[in-house]
Amino acid sequence: MRTIHQPYLLFLGDAPDKLAGKTALGIAHWNPGAVLGQLRLPGCALDVGVPDRTIAEAAALGVKTLVIGVVNRGGVMPPLWLETFKAALEHGMDIANGLHTRLTSFPELVQLAAKYGRQLHDVRHFDGALPIGTGEKRSGKRLLTVGTDCSIGKKFTALVIAGALQKAGRKATFRATGQTGILISGSGIAVDAVVADFIAGAVEMLSPANEADHWDIIEGQGSLLHPSFAGVTMGLVHGAQPDALVLCVDESRTHMRGVKHPVPSMETAIEQHLTAARLTNPAVRLVGISAITEHLDEATARRHIADLAARSGVPATDSVRFGVADILKEL
Amino acid sequence: MRTIHQPYLLFLGDAPDKLAGKTALGIAHWNPGAVLGQLRLPGCALDVGVPDRTIAEAAALGVKTLVIGVVNRGGVMPPLWLETFKAALEHGMDIANGLHTRLTSFPELVQLAAKYGRQLHDVRHFDGALPIGTGEKRSGKRLLTVGTDCSIGKKFTALVIAGALQKAGRKATFRATGQTGILISGSGIAVDAVVADFIAGAVEMLSPANEADHWDIIEGQGSLLHPSFAGVTMGLVHGAQPDALVLCVDESRTHMRGVKHPVPSMETAIEQHLTAARLTNPAVRLVGISAITEHLDEATARRHIADLAARSGVPATDSVRFGVADILKEL
Repeated sequence: MRTIHQPYLLFLGDAPDKLAGKTALGIAHWNPGAVLGQLRLPGCALDVGVPDRTIAEAAALGVKTLVIGVVNRGGVMPPLWLETFKAALEHGMDIANGLHTRLTSFPELVQLAAKYGRQLHDVRHFDGALPIGTGEKRSGKRLLTVGTDCSIGKKFTALVIAGALQKAGRKATFRATGQTGILISGSGIAVDAVVADFIAGAVEMLSPANEADHWDIIEGQGSLLHPSFAGVTMGLVHGAQPDALVLCVDESRTHMRGVKHPVPSMETAIEQHLTAARLTNPAVRLVGISAITEHLDEATARRHIADLAARSGVPATDSVRFGVADILKEL
Repeated sequence: MRTIHQPYLLFLGDAPDKLAGKTALGIAHWNPGAVLGQLRLPGCALDVGVPDRTIAEAAALGVKTLVIGVVNRGGVMPPLWLETFKAALEHGMDIANGLHTRLTSFPELVQLAAKYGRQLHDVRHFDGALPIGTGEKRSGKRLLTVGTDCSIGKKFTALVIAGALQKAGRKATFRATGQTGILISGSGIAVDAVVADFIAGAVEMLSPANEADHWDIIEGQGSLLHPSFAGVTMGLVHGAQPDALVLCVDESRTHMRGVKHPVPSMETAIEQHLTAARLTNPAVRLVGISAITEHLDEATARRHIADLAARSGVPATDSVRFGVADILKEL
């Protein structure tokens, strides 16, 4: 499993707007304690609300990793970005990158990293060795977020639940399975990037045996009902051997992301995810529903959530908007 | 998609026994027309029943590819193997390899292949670009073999069905999804070796739109009920968008390959594979059961098959032992 050392300096480059800086904003929001500053190049229109630091200033403050928090346009790394990355390596920092373009595809960065003993983290890729999944029972408890579609709140819901458990003094670890989650938490495996034979094995490695009262809160990916990515989800469900599932839904969405298929019903998604999860944990239970309600006013959102709870028989919420207190009672 | 040019010379190395030469025996059995000879090194105890040829003789006969038909012990390629491979490249042949060890990990082979314009096929690996699956309907018909476990006859059943359709004058293509199937047929994609995000997309590419009365007979992998590999199976089921499923079973087996899980019942496997397949083809039907009966005498085997047919409501057979005439009537 990959570990990215914190604290971070967030590299914002010449980001033209907020959308380009989604990763940086996510890290600053979900793990503010890990962020000691931002580095902006001329023309940058983004500000994540932390102090501006040069590479030298950040190094003096003890920053361990420069994190690329913005997207590059057309897959190109501008020359000025590369100059900044070289300076970071020279100042003893690692670099973490969630873009498709690999840092390791630039020989000058590879050479400098070797020279200074630094690491280049291309978190969207996974080149390491992985085990084949065994399906054998591991000690400790696991919750997996699943969904009726991609991009429907699985990462945020897992972060909220892990944070709430920790705040309540319980043993809990967020387990990241995608690049943004890895950058936020500082470790994880991008399971959609592993070789297909190893999906379940990667998740078993990611959430190893633990104390009996410890909860791994595992970030879900895709959906068993999504025609592009269900293979990833299936391996994730089996490898996680979840004791608890939380299903993320958005009933305002008509089609699944990137395809012409309609979004499946909450009921269908519950049934199919529970059926799959029972293979490696026959005792798995659905413990909550989390809906995206940002398009609804509060009263309408609360009525919608009450309806989801009545239909599913488990607590429902918008985890980001209303918290997860009722779901925690189920754990 | 990978294409391996035929005819072949089968490289048997110094195989100590039949088991080591499973791949060569499979190719010679399932595609005898593609095999012009075998090459055996001193100490080889295996004979697949085709003429012995030197590299020079095979080249003169028009052989296009030297196929490694045996396993290497401990992942090592013995020096004498490499000498033979170099001679093949020098004589204008490509080399095809279904082992984990990559031919491309030997710089001297890479250099020679470049010099002579030859290809090194490491069929267990896939380094090319793949599309994301779309789930959109393609013209033509598709049959997918699925199973209650790994190594339960999915490849052989697909080969028998494709061969029987072709013999009956119907348009049909075997589509290989694993290394042995690729070496037998000369093309395909090892779907368990692709990056997880692209499983369904790889299968869509492997079985593209075709004439309305053309059948792709797609080799299945793993099982939706196998805790190690179900992710691969899920992507394969969705990408294939099968019109027809044939389920392979072995009711004498107690545990799934490599894990402690019991083999699921035929009924459970039918239900879960049909449920998954309906996502990309709501009209999918189960059209047959193929059982492994080699441990039973003929009368007992026929009684067992009659029982499977009665329980499933579709034709049952041992495809290799008794053929697939009744399944063909369903297509």
